[in-house]
Amino acid sequence: MEHGGDLLTYKDEYKGELIDFSSNINPLGRPEGLDKAIMDDFKQVEAYPDIQYRELKESLAGYLNCETNNVLLGNGAVEIINNFIMFADRVVVFKPSFSEYELRARVHKKDLLIISYLEDFSLRLDVLKKSLKRGDLLILGNPNNPSGLRIEESILVEVYKCVKDADAFLLLDEAFYEFCPEDYDSIELFKEDGYKNVGIIRAATKFFALPGLRLGYACASENIVKMIQTIELPWSINSVANTAGQTIFSDKDYIKASKEYIQIEREYLLKELKTIKGIQAYKSDTNFILIKLVDYDEEEIFHKLLKKGILVRKCSSFKELGENHIRIAVKDREKNSILIQALKKFI
Amino acid sequence: MEHGGDLLTYKDEYKGELIDFSSNINPLGRPEGLDKAIMDDFKQVEAYPDIQYRELKESLAGYLNCETNNVLLGNGAVEIINNFIMFADRVVVFKPSFSEYELRARVHKKDLLIISYLEDFSLRLDVLKKSLKRGDLLILGNPNNPSGLRIEESILVEVYKCVKDADAFLLLDEAFYEFCPEDYDSIELFKEDGYKNVGIIRAATKFFALPGLRLGYACASENIVKMIQTIELPWSINSVANTAGQTIFSDKDYIKASKEYIQIEREYLLKELKTIKGIQAYKSDTNFILIKLVDYDEEEIFHKLLKKGILVRKCSSFKELGENHIRIAVKDREKNSILIQALKKFI
Repeated sequence: MEHGGDLLTYKDEYKGELIDFSSNINPLGRPEGLDKAIMDDFKQVEAYPDIQYRELKESLAGYLNCETNNVLLGNGAVEIINNFIMFADRVVVFKPSFSEYELRARVHKKDLLIISYLEDFSLRLDVLKKSLKRGDLLILGNPNNPSGLRIEESILVEVYKCVKDADAFLLLDEAFYEFCPEDYDSIELFKEDGYKNVGIIRAATKFFALPGLRLGYACASENIVKMIQTIELPWSINSVANTAGQTIFSDKDYIKASKEYIQIEREYLLKELKTIKGIQAYKSDTNFILIKLVDYDEEEIFHKLLKKGILVRKCSSFKELGENHIRIAVKDREKNSILIQALKKFI
Repeated sequence: MEHGGDLLTYKDEYKGELIDFSSNINPLGRPEGLDKAIMDDFKQVEAYPDIQYRELKESLAGYLNCETNNVLLGNGAVEIINNFIMFADRVVVFKPSFSEYELRARVHKKDLLIISYLEDFSLRLDVLKKSLKRGDLLILGNPNNPSGLRIEESILVEVYKCVKDADAFLLLDEAFYEFCPEDYDSIELFKEDGYKNVGIIRAATKFFALPGLRLGYACASENIVKMIQTIELPWSINSVANTAGQTIFSDKDYIKASKEYIQIEREYLLKELKTIKGIQAYKSDTNFILIKLVDYDEEEIFHKLLKKGILVRKCSSFKELGENHIRIAVKDREKNSILIQALKKFI
């Protein structure tokens, strides 16, 4: 299965250091002070992490503004997705979306209903209403990958109603949440309802620039948390990720600066991309942008960029997109303009 | 499910720093030079680890003396056990043993055959021969936990023949391998047969004193490796564990010193334990010792030791052992003698 960030596979095609636009990581890098916290606590690797991760859950409950017994953890968001899928009778996904939703359903031999997004990547509520049934697990990226679009609040409320009416379950994959405009917070939105029939997954991976640490987390009702815990692997968060999770979420300056930075650079990229004929950049709510190569195919552009040291994400592994889309991450201004100049040259 | 190393649960009962005899970690601590390697490479957390872990697998192939395409990885040995179980028709375990064998089988709703070890913790080959059938996954701790006993080579060869005859699969959990006397190496033993119907799991957890890092690995045939990889979670080894795994296995001095140290301290403990009336220490091939409290129950001794700052492993969670066994790790001489003095005082 193809994923972003696979630099090693392409190391022979470009000898220097690649600029990685294929994985969607905060360009400001990891929070300052993290390294010291990790080193100060590194001796902890000689002990098992607390099997209940009590301090980490407290830290997360503060950050997410929920109770500690609403918090689930995973070795990356994908492990939490996997654990929810194990309880589903059927998995319902919209495509194109993160390939692991479908893959993990297949691994666990679950029935699978695949619905296509509309051409503008909006949800098909009519199909959803007709199709959802008891025991379904509906997984939605919010924002979705690769479209970069967030579900509007009013639409999400409708989806949720639909899910509750069917006695199904809604799993929101919000791994890119912090990069989005502050419109609504799903954890607040579903709090009054006690997270009945809904789980919200987030991760330190992208926003805190720590994909290597593998720290995913989720908010769900106490009952669902207890249910998932019966099947969790023990000690799935390693002690370094455990330490990081007790440090990064309180770094308010970093969080604010990152949000502002991403917004400015996203707007810069979208504005510049609009001026390039022969490609069409989609609107994005987050830190990556999907681009349709109207007059080109992805292989051509991919390898031209690679020869210049730029790695983008080919999107043909999202089958619904065909072979003429690429996805780029929002990076720092210097790198973003290198990409823009390269695209202007090749297109 | 109860596991060792759960210090936090007992922190209110003893206010100082507990001496942890409940988890079986190399008392020499992590290899020297590891911290520097980790810090030098720490920036790697900002990228996804290589999704194929090519360098880590090469390092492991060298250490285990097998080919890179024989190597499997996991977020701790338990994830690899879990992945093998997913392919089993039925899981066969001897008890008492590591609780996760049975638990993971139940999580995946597998049929389960539980056979008791004989009173001296030896295998019941006769029962095995009669019971094994096609599609069975037989999981054996080697050495087994909590007994501490390694399977004799000739017995293992018989078990393997039995498994092949039935077209079943043998999964050896050798997480404590390096602590054992150098009698035979399963990876050598089954090499000629191309690891047909057998997988051998080991881990950095115990011997390299890195339970917090979560680095398990296994050796199996290329076909089995490919099969398991179809269901693996992506990026399950975090980048810090990935770096560690490219450092520690070449530290031959550390490996030699640790083996020698453990042997000396195990013999010291066994000799001293023999002098204490009212308890019976079992023979051990590894870095932990099972003790039968002939005239006491575990709660009494557990709490008496805890009040002195010593945490041992109660064994009643291994149901077959009843409520009068404890398990202790082999630690350094100072701590080992504190334990011996305390036991002499209370018993």
